[in-house]
Amino acid sequence: MQAKPKRIQQLITDLSAFTKTPGNGVTRLTYSKEDLQARDYIKQTMQSYGLRVQEDGMGNIYGKLEGKLREAPSVIVGSHFDSVPNGGAYDGAAGVVAGLEVAALFQDNQLTPHYPLEVIAMIEEEGSRFRGLMGSSGITGSIKENTFSEITDADGISVTDAMANAGLDISQPIYRDPSTMRAFLEMHIEQGPTLEESQIPIGVVQSIVGLTQLNVTVIGQAGHAGTTPMDKRSDALIAAAEMISDLPRLAADEGNGSVLTVGQLQVSPNAANVIPDSVNFTIDIRSAQEEHVLNILNQAKELIHSYHNDRIKTNIQQSLYIRPKTLNDHIQSLLSDTCTDLNIASTKMNSGAGHDAMVFSDVTDVGLIFVPSQDGLSHCPEEYTHELDLARGVNVLYETAKQLTEA
Amino acid sequence: MQAKPKRIQQLITDLSAFTKTPGNGVTRLTYSKEDLQARDYIKQTMQSYGLRVQEDGMGNIYGKLEGKLREAPSVIVGSHFDSVPNGGAYDGAAGVVAGLEVAALFQDNQLTPHYPLEVIAMIEEEGSRFRGLMGSSGITGSIKENTFSEITDADGISVTDAMANAGLDISQPIYRDPSTMRAFLEMHIEQGPTLEESQIPIGVVQSIVGLTQLNVTVIGQAGHAGTTPMDKRSDALIAAAEMISDLPRLAADEGNGSVLTVGQLQVSPNAANVIPDSVNFTIDIRSAQEEHVLNILNQAKELIHSYHNDRIKTNIQQSLYIRPKTLNDHIQSLLSDTCTDLNIASTKMNSGAGHDAMVFSDVTDVGLIFVPSQDGLSHCPEEYTHELDLARGVNVLYETAKQLTEA
Repeated sequence: MQAKPKRIQQLITDLSAFTKTPGNGVTRLTYSKEDLQARDYIKQTMQSYGLRVQEDGMGNIYGKLEGKLREAPSVIVGSHFDSVPNGGAYDGAAGVVAGLEVAALFQDNQLTPHYPLEVIAMIEEEGSRFRGLMGSSGITGSIKENTFSEITDADGISVTDAMANAGLDISQPIYRDPSTMRAFLEMHIEQGPTLEESQIPIGVVQSIVGLTQLNVTVIGQAGHAGTTPMDKRSDALIAAAEMISDLPRLAADEGNGSVLTVGQLQVSPNAANVIPDSVNFTIDIRSAQEEHVLNILNQAKELIHSYHNDRIKTNIQQSLYIRPKTLNDHIQSLLSDTCTDLNIASTKMNSGAGHDAMVFSDVTDVGLIFVPSQDGLSHCPEEYTHELDLARGVNVLYETAKQLTEA
Repeated sequence: MQAKPKRIQQLITDLSAFTKTPGNGVTRLTYSKEDLQARDYIKQTMQSYGLRVQEDGMGNIYGKLEGKLREAPSVIVGSHFDSVPNGGAYDGAAGVVAGLEVAALFQDNQLTPHYPLEVIAMIEEEGSRFRGLMGSSGITGSIKENTFSEITDADGISVTDAMANAGLDISQPIYRDPSTMRAFLEMHIEQGPTLEESQIPIGVVQSIVGLTQLNVTVIGQAGHAGTTPMDKRSDALIAAAEMISDLPRLAADEGNGSVLTVGQLQVSPNAANVIPDSVNFTIDIRSAQEEHVLNILNQAKELIHSYHNDRIKTNIQQSLYIRPKTLNDHIQSLLSDTCTDLNIASTKMNSGAGHDAMVFSDVTDVGLIFVPSQDGLSHCPEEYTHELDLARGVNVLYETAKQLTEA
């Protein structure tokens, strides 16, 4: 029995209803009301597929199918269930649903694996509330457990306080010993146009781009919009706007698929009749090779510092730096061979987005496949992947999980 | 007996404590907790100075000293008591305190006027919550009473709901028949460097600049920051940043003291890893002559429309248009002559900022004086005027009010 497109689509649709912005995409921030609703739904689905449910001390959800071998390491399949603000129904959720459908197929086909199969639904991959890749970073130990009381959201609420407020159990462990993991498999939407344009349904990911994020602060001097002559202004927003106009050129000039994005910006005091005295914005830089990331990073820093003078002060903080990651060769081959066996066309590709798989690749063998994104759109309400494409991806994961769990 | 600098300074200091941002300037938005605290303080001070207190249906506060003539029109002295976010202790408050000190001097000197003297403390001149010049516009009828249920703040709360939530009485009338007003006098800080640089303590305002405000919306297409190639983006923030970099040139080129400010800007969805799909920002344009305002306005509209294409959509709404205003000649002469009599140097000048006086000038005779702003700063925590400069301004207002009320 193979993956059931309708069953998959039903889960996607059901999960997409847990949004703070109905009619305007999926907004499901970590530990929000919508997180708790989706959480209940995922846990119930895990149980109905015969999995034993457990949540860790940061709210990651595991559903486990025991294997014949006692105390053996697990093959983990899944993704994250948080979203960006006004995002789509597939980024993260499609991978969680894929994990659940793999478990359903183990149940449908009455398989008992040698190694345990675990489905995982992780928190906070997007960083829309706290920090990017936070769920997987907690599990793999790249963020230490004792720091979660210091990581805060925009309102100054810490991870531990937010969890407690949501009624989650912060007393459970988070870190997971790598010896308990045999492999991590993730299906994700491509979030770009390549698969759709080349009409290939599966991308087997070879490597994930390197990524750095900066927080830039520009400080000027507030003043009255009507009484401060143009030549006596220290307008933080004009300076920031000039920087932001100039920054994209750096990625375009570097080429090799490099990208640069200013996605977040706040103005202070943000009143129509006051000259802005402070602007904060983010810069996100990605490229497949580290040297390109570093080139753009250094040029961006130079560009911003060039605005630093008597009137305008600039400050840069690097909030994230992740090297490009190459994924496990053996699992890449397994995934490609599975595609061939199933008569599904596949291609090797690189990922322009960071994924939980990247974090797991530091501690265990990882496989990551992409399915097509319609019009290449993602992080927006229009994000869409056809249920048949989802089902193809699940079939590849299922066959691969069968081999890795020795079912 | 003349104005008492210490008594004035005490009121300034006391009022500045009613701020949402202690240590970071005065933030006192209309109908906020801080508004209610300042309101109580102003009403108590009015009572202690022998005034009969009354609030109108939008929360403007009047304190009245009856005159010998029955049913006679009043000489009104005052200003507004709201502030911009993180503003100073003087913009608005200094004029309210000046009105209170004039009343204190009438009491000190046991004067009984022929025409009533009214001290006024108005709401919402800055427009930081609802709309600029809203308090005076309600009184003079340039905003109709039945529209206050439709004017909303950023959270969608209407003026009437916000008043009711604050426990204020919305059943009182707001509009005031012009026949009940004999004159309106306002003292305000200059908010610019002219008086301080020329070491002249009083500016008698001849005219107030024309002013227009636009709300600009730039719409692009959201997308993933890592997977959308640079040449396939429709980034609303990059487009907005290019516009904002280019806009100040229009005011500088027009000259004649024209100014243009982008003070408020919001990005959506405002996440570091999402290409912005929408940016909203304000444009504030001011100049002493209407033709300059219109020239800049038309060029700004052209500039923004030039960004409208297949990928980026732009929309402009004009939220405010106020013609330049010339103030009453007779009261200008009275104020200048009073300065001469008091041996205080004064100069005629234009106002780069809009003021409640401008709104009253449509319905009654208006006088407006400026006192020096240290370093020309305003709308910021550093805003400062020395108590002796405030006292000089009050003495001019007091002598002028004596003449106009025939005390």
